[in-house]
Amino acid sequence: MEDSIINLLEQVRIEKPLVHNITNLVVMNTTANALLALGASPVMVHSPLEVREVVDISQALVINIGTLSEHTAEAMLVATEHANTIGRPWVLDPVGAGISAFRNDLLSNLLALKPTVIRGNASEIITLYNSNQPNTKGVDSTADSKDALRFGKLLQQHTGSIICISGNIDYILSEKHTVEVYNGHPLMTQVTGLGCSATAIIGAFLAVTDRYFEAAAAGVSLLSLAGELAAQSASGPGTLQLHLYDELYRLNADRIQSSLKIKRYAH
Amino acid sequence: MEDSIINLLEQVRIEKPLVHNITNLVVMNTTANALLALGASPVMVHSPLEVREVVDISQALVINIGTLSEHTAEAMLVATEHANTIGRPWVLDPVGAGISAFRNDLLSNLLALKPTVIRGNASEIITLYNSNQPNTKGVDSTADSKDALRFGKLLQQHTGSIICISGNIDYILSEKHTVEVYNGHPLMTQVTGLGCSATAIIGAFLAVTDRYFEAAAAGVSLLSLAGELAAQSASGPGTLQLHLYDELYRLNADRIQSSLKIKRYAH
Amino acid sequence: MEDSIINLLEQVRIEKPLVHNITNLVVMNTTANALLALGASPVMVHSPLEVREVVDISQALVINIGTLSEHTAEAMLVATEHANTIGRPWVLDPVGAGISAFRNDLLSNLLALKPTVIRGNASEIITLYNSNQPNTKGVDSTADSKDALRFGKLLQQHTGSIICISGNIDYILSEKHTVEVYNGHPLMTQVTGLGCSATAIIGAFLAVTDRYFEAAAAGVSLLSLAGELAAQSASGPGTLQLHLYDELYRLNADRIQSSLKIKRYAH
Repeated sequence: MEDSIINLLEQVRIEKPLVHNITNLVVMNTTANALLALGASPVMVHSPLEVREVVDISQALVINIGTLSEHTAEAMLVATEHANTIGRPWVLDPVGAGISAFRNDLLSNLLALKPTVIRGNASEIITLYNSNQPNTKGVDSTADSKDALRFGKLLQQHTGSIICISGNIDYILSEKHTVEVYNGHPLMTQVTGLGCSATAIIGAFLAVTDRYFEAAAAGVSLLSLAGELAAQSASGPGTLQLHLYDELYRLNADRIQSSLKIKRYAH
Repeated sequence: MEDSIINLLEQVRIEKPLVHNITNLVVMNTTANALLALGASPVMVHSPLEVREVVDISQALVINIGTLSEHTAEAMLVATEHANTIGRPWVLDPVGAGISAFRNDLLSNLLALKPTVIRGNASEIITLYNSNQPNTKGVDSTADSKDALRFGKLLQQHTGSIICISGNIDYILSEKHTVEVYNGHPLMTQVTGLGCSATAIIGAFLAVTDRYFEAAAAGVSLLSLAGELAAQSASGPGTLQLHLYDELYRLNADRIQSSLKIKRYAH
Repeated sequence: MEDSIINLLEQVRIEKPLVHNITNLVVMNTTANALLALGASPVMVHSPLEVREVVDISQALVINIGTLSEHTAEAMLVATEHANTIGRPWVLDPVGAGISAFRNDLLSNLLALKPTVIRGNASEIITLYNSNQPNTKGVDSTADSKDALRFGKLLQQHTGSIICISGNIDYILSEKHTVEVYNGHPLMTQVTGLGCSATAIIGAFLAVTDRYFEAAAAGVSLLSLAGELAAQSASGPGTLQLHLYDELYRLNADRIQSSLKIKRYAH
């Protein structure tokens, strides 16, 4: 598994794939910098008038619904439909699932378009499956990723998407396999946009392979690893965010071999 | 006063209140990170289609008019009316008061809805009171906070809101009391969004108490204190912003007791 | 040339000019902080309802088309027409030129309004001149600045604007003169918004002089110099971005005299 992740990272750095992001306004800068630090090339375009042409020239699409307007919601639907038509992989980050009827409707429409990958925190994944259950805690998770595991599996069966649940332990779920990631650091929950950055770099890996499960595992695990390494020299959330970009940039075979703590099994 | 602020900080860290921000696009990431570093949970939602539901699940609301569109202006009015209806406290940051008729009209409408707290720099507070006087300096203050004091008091009487004026000395004004804060650092004026961060963390304190004057004083004074501590190890505005998050995260009873320089009196 | 740049920097710090930015959502915070660190006062307002009044009170205007909507595109046209009417200099950053018909149409309209300065990377400058050639690489450059030089000169003749091409070597082109800048660092390409920051600080220099060629050269060269100085102590793109603000703040006559590597000649 580590070897596959190392190869995918090298592939990103060689190909520098163009990753199209229709993402939330809070983390635009954060996720663009995460993609650049990793070695990919971000493009952030969210006008319904432009997204179809940008999907055409990009190798993968990232959809993050954190801050919606009617225009960006429309752009997301136009872009994902077009991505499906021309065979581009795309990843959905269902930020704040459950906080409004408008958001839930959009999520229903996006799920119907069958994302290649869905990545969220435990609360988001639970809400996404069980969409009748109101989410009462905004965008931060109140549930543990372990509790969300069985909902993640149900969501996987329901959508056919690869499901990623971020948390204490990160889970990546396909129809038949699970990857568990034991990297990360509690301080990461006090920086905005790190889950969103995991989603963005999943996009970078989807862009360079058609082994989407491996791509999702690479994105989730390398963000958690970079965060863990960044936390070692951080004196708080400010320095953690900053060092995280440096660590994404410095990731290499040695660091991955010596520090990545993942487990893969058939479930 | 220090004891009340220490207690409020502990309360924020225990309750991790959900703070709803309809804020400007320049500082969204900055204020989300300030809230997370302090211990609160930010949610940034600005579509008129969603804000009512987000006010319902949040404990306080932050309105910052820095970058307006017709949609966000509408969202601000919908959200603050709903906050008043269900009894949620809210804080207004009148960024760039006076730079356009559109902005002044919105501010009139927001003032009529009686914000719990208003926080601005000296120029903004003066303009907000004396709305016929054009503001010719954008979003940075050209006036001293001392000069704004009498306008702040008049604005307090006019609106009934608690008024906070940021500057060399910070002032927090209720009907009967003044708090003066002597913390801060001149370099803070060369980082964008620090005033906006003070406003955001006032929101976090409003969320955990109904002693709104103490909440406003806690927000203003702790941001100034964190900035002052951050400046001690900064080599410029970049490192200051970064360290400020770390210092918000590291604030505790000891640091507050030893370094906070505030004075409270009846006026 | 160095003396002129040193004088312009002093002028910015004395006058603290108000620089109006209608810019992209990814870099709003970055460019506001770059302007503040340099010593200018940014105002970021992009509603068509407000931009005319903000142009009136500002000393220069920055237009960056990175993330468009119909509203911001309209605001850009309203603001630049008004800037021309009242004689305000303005600089155009054609981010992502060529990626969509909508963007190309807007660029045609903006070029017809004769920007004082245009600054882009090599791919953008080539695409801007030769608008039939599709850009297949989003917002990062696939061409070398040297290759773009002849297109930059043609674009200069066509528009009458001063043309700046960022890259390995930066070029600033007027009708009769060229400035070449040899500062910078390869790591700068792995941080988002540094080209946009060069454009923003060109705005700060345009605001304090009517020698626009010198202003453009000052903006481009000082950003590249600050990036080069920042890279010396950076361990990756995160620390580079951070230190860049500190270095902009710390720029002075000594550092410019000892480290700026520029060449000016008649072409």
